[in-house]
Amino acid sequence: MPTPKALFFDVFGTCVDWRTTVAREGFGEQFADDWRARYQPQLETVRSGERPWTILDVLHREALDEVLAAHRIDLPREQRDELNLVWHRLDPWPDTVPGLARLKERFVIAPVSNGNIALLVDMAKHAGLPWDVILGAELARAYKPQPEAYLRSAEALGIAPGEAMMVAAHNGDLVAARELGLMTAFVPRPREHGPGQTSDLRAEGTYDVVATDLIDLVSAL
Amino acid sequence: MPTPKALFFDVFGTCVDWRTTVAREGFGEQFADDWRARYQPQLETVRSGERPWTILDVLHREALDEVLAAHRIDLPREQRDELNLVWHRLDPWPDTVPGLARLKERFVIAPVSNGNIALLVDMAKHAGLPWDVILGAELARAYKPQPEAYLRSAEALGIAPGEAMMVAAHNGDLVAARELGLMTAFVPRPREHGPGQTSDLRAEGTYDVVATDLIDLVSAL
Repeated sequence: MPTPKALFFDVFGTCVDWRTTVAREGFGEQFADDWRARYQPQLETVRSGERPWTILDVLHREALDEVLAAHRIDLPREQRDELNLVWHRLDPWPDTVPGLARLKERFVIAPVSNGNIALLVDMAKHAGLPWDVILGAELARAYKPQPEAYLRSAEALGIAPGEAMMVAAHNGDLVAARELGLMTAFVPRPREHGPGQTSDLRAEGTYDVVATDLIDLVSAL
Repeated sequence: MPTPKALFFDVFGTCVDWRTTVAREGFGEQFADDWRARYQPQLETVRSGERPWTILDVLHREALDEVLAAHRIDLPREQRDELNLVWHRLDPWPDTVPGLARLKERFVIAPVSNGNIALLVDMAKHAGLPWDVILGAELARAYKPQPEAYLRSAEALGIAPGEAMMVAAHNGDLVAARELGLMTAFVPRPREHGPGQTSDLRAEGTYDVVATDLIDLVSAL
């Protein structure tokens, strides 16, 4: 395996524990799961062209109205706007910040996330994520696993896709990246969806690296 | 003056001393000046629509061929490609890194530069510039002082133009930013163009802050 020039990180689930933070600041775990469950169907309306490019903050806010209604919770608009920003202040997994700090010494490290730039900047300030640059959906105007999200991120760094490594806790993300020629690293997060998680418990494809967490990834690279 | 939510930094001249680095790694001060002199006319061909969106690395490389020819210097293509990357490893002014580090504690700090993302990432790694996010020309596909370069940068952070402050050593940059509603800070760099500099020696407009350097800007804010 050649040495990557840049490491691209999935963020929700891979670097931060969205479920715990959203459950705590909102209305519990079921509420957090229901909010997140609207994520992929929403992205699909943008990917398909059914609706024009829309950043994740807007999609989160629309989903929040739906999930509040489904849970029969009434909340003033100002409090809804504020609660929507919980996605800007998600807590990292314990290994994330020390792992990224060490990886940053040797590689360009960047989120290649479906989060919008404002969200990722606020999260980095909150959680201490030491990104070199913020790439991904908003720069590419495409949502993973659309090829543009990965390819435009490599292009912005002036590197070939094969010089980047995608790091993610999700097999779907890595399979899409691998098909485009990126190197891949799987880091399982078996509690992302809580104790009953059934998906992404292990590597389901052939990746360049399988690490137990981001500290282990430092050693593997 | 309200407290800004983000500080936008001009980079070439304001944060880094391009002339000294390019002169040292290339063919002296006159060569550096001649290379840089092609910058604004090149940008103007993109701003005017005469040529499609083109990143600064490409413009620098084209200008390098011209200035080498003008100086009757022959250089193999590989060495030209390598010399072109001198713009990726410019040295900071002495106050830049400590100033940015302290400003980062209180504000989102971002380059809003005409440099492309790869150039700014490499420069940040080389010089230790602790950016939170890289904004500016490549994200906006527009070159300052075109309004999109400033407005799209604020939009990406989810803030109004008036919540951002542009920090620059160039009056033209600040006048354009001010007209769009951004706050402005002038930081003179009287040696950017060497000992004979005649332009941008002092604030020529009314700005929110005039500071002697980035350490002084910390105090002023």
